[in-house]
Amino acid sequence: MASIKQRIIMEPIGYVKRLSKFEDVKDETLECDIIIYERFLDALEGIESFSHIFVIYWLHLVSEDSRRIYKVHPKGKRDLPLVGVFSTRSPNRPNPIGLTLVELLARRSNILTVRGLDALDETPVLDLKPYSRHDKAENFKAPDWWGGKLQLKL
Amino acid sequence: MASIKQRIIMEPIGYVKRLSKFEDVKDETLECDIIIYERFLDALEGIESFSHIFVIYWLHLVSEDSRRIYKVHPKGKRDLPLVGVFSTRSPNRPNPIGLTLVELLARRSNILTVRGLDALDETPVLDLKPYSRHDKAENFKAPDWWGGKLQLKL
Repeated sequence: MASIKQRIIMEPIGYVKRLSKFEDVKDETLECDIIIYERFLDALEGIESFSHIFVIYWLHLVSEDSRRIYKVHPKGKRDLPLVGVFSTRSPNRPNPIGLTLVELLARRSNILTVRGLDALDETPVLDLKPYSRHDKAENFKAPDWWGGKLQLKL
Repeated sequence: MASIKQRIIMEPIGYVKRLSKFEDVKDETLECDIIIYERFLDALEGIESFSHIFVIYWLHLVSEDSRRIYKVHPKGKRDLPLVGVFSTRSPNRPNPIGLTLVELLARRSNILTVRGLDALDETPVLDLKPYSRHDKAENFKAPDWWGGKLQLKL
């Protein structure tokens, strides 16, 4: 039965390396590196043929207490409604997993240079996946507070 | 230092419930439910305002041995080149995390009905994230074998 409490154990495949710990990670024009541990080198073969990949990472600075926050004001803005964390991309969530689509600019052996990764220096990386046509939302609808170019008014 | 071996521990937030264990999960027209454990009910508030969400799940049937497979023929097709697992969406990967963008059709309390989730019955779910404009790849390029409508020839 799926209701039994389970523990799932993962190990990082690498980590994020930024030029400085003080970069604004929300600046989408910034580049950074992902260092993949050398034992996974074979698993990278061919990834340089993709222009975009998803990076799945572990938000290692989120505390145990923050994992028990279930409602937030999106982006910390008090004028936005209090909503469930699964309705946001907040780092505070039961499993603090980060997901970002990045541009893959180059690969040198086990080092990937990417643009648009909003993860801090030394963030552990869990997985990499190439973008696919199934990742495209057709007729995407979102609440007003979500904003963004893709939003269609209801 | 980020190079020290770390273990990351997660707990499922819920699981996938399909009408039958024998459904073809690759059939994108099929609907299924995601049962979120009731203790996370608050975290769902507002999610029904989104038409599309990412489901992040744990491929629980992938064996320890399969986690050490680093190269595969995409989709098991021998006529496609042998590439690294990070260049594919293969379930065989060091951390068998699944990522699927689904249509969110309805929410009844802690139960979400979705379309397009290619996860088996009883698959543990780790996280839910609303789709955002940052998840859209502009000028996506991929190798020929990847296929799909979004591909632009190089």
